[in-house]
Amino acid sequence: MNPKALYKISYGLYVVASVKDGKYNGQIANTVFQVASKPILIAASLNKENLTHNYVKHSGVFTVSVLAKDTPMEFIGRFGFKSGKNFDKFKGINYKIGKTGAPVVLDNAVAYIEAKVVNRLDASTHTLFIGEVVDAELLEDREVMTYEHYHFVKGGKSPKTATVYLEE
Amino acid sequence: MNPKALYKISYGLYVVASVKDGKYNGQIANTVFQVASKPILIAASLNKENLTHNYVKHSGVFTVSVLAKDTPMEFIGRFGFKSGKNFDKFKGINYKIGKTGAPVVLDNAVAYIEAKVVNRLDASTHTLFIGEVVDAELLEDREVMTYEHYHFVKGGKSPKTATVYLEE
Repeated sequence: MNPKALYKISYGLYVVASVKDGKYNGQIANTVFQVASKPILIAASLNKENLTHNYVKHSGVFTVSVLAKDTPMEFIGRFGFKSGKNFDKFKGINYKIGKTGAPVVLDNAVAYIEAKVVNRLDASTHTLFIGEVVDAELLEDREVMTYEHYHFVKGGKSPKTATVYLEE
Repeated sequence: MNPKALYKISYGLYVVASVKDGKYNGQIANTVFQVASKPILIAASLNKENLTHNYVKHSGVFTVSVLAKDTPMEFIGRFGFKSGKNFDKFKGINYKIGKTGAPVVLDNAVAYIEAKVVNRLDASTHTLFIGEVVDAELLEDREVMTYEHYHFVKGGKSPKTATVYLEE
């Protein structure tokens, strides 16, 4: 068995954000995808240790901002390698409050999607949240960031809490 | 709401295959992704109307072949736009029987993954099968097909049963 075969699965790169008691948090995720079209359902796999997981579980809503290919590594680091437990990730960035009440990150986003959780599934270290899409908009006609581009071209790393983390 | 925002989610293109009573079937899917890393879990969203869905539900195993970027449209059509109900999709193509007993499509595959279903989740028209990875191998060092390339560059269509199907 060669776990590197798993690297051949394609992903984008997203900020998944949510709200709890008036506080906002978001994290980088690569595992976001549409799972059905009638109604439109999307899924996001979040690590149970992450603060955003806690917020989504509590509020039952989340937003997804699809990141542009030219998103600066610093921006990805802000959402992907820092914890909102001791840092306000939304301070100084552009966002709006969506229809769900959750924040929608606008910086470096080509599109966003808002969803209400209708189901969830335990997946060991992660929970797969299934959300019905309640809003979605295109923002800018720019190329999207793929996980492959982030990882292989830009040399980006994955934290141990990522779905795709493999020990090397 | 603009459903085209959903098109900004990145996917690859895969053949998901399974077995039932000694018969093999497979279908094109774009919704395959890793959901956890310890143990390695992958998910695949399959339409309930598809024969492969029936086979996976019955046997509890499935394989995923990651398609190469230069996969001929004819090959995609064979697995994506024809039903195995009245056609043996495996006749005349290269495949092997994997550790799970399910067939692994080798033609146009850069890698394959085999999984045993450990959980499943109802998602309206689709079922999301969660599988623990029991085998995975790299086959060829070629670029993978992305759904974006298939759809926007090659002009490929999605059947109505696809997770990403949107009426235009």
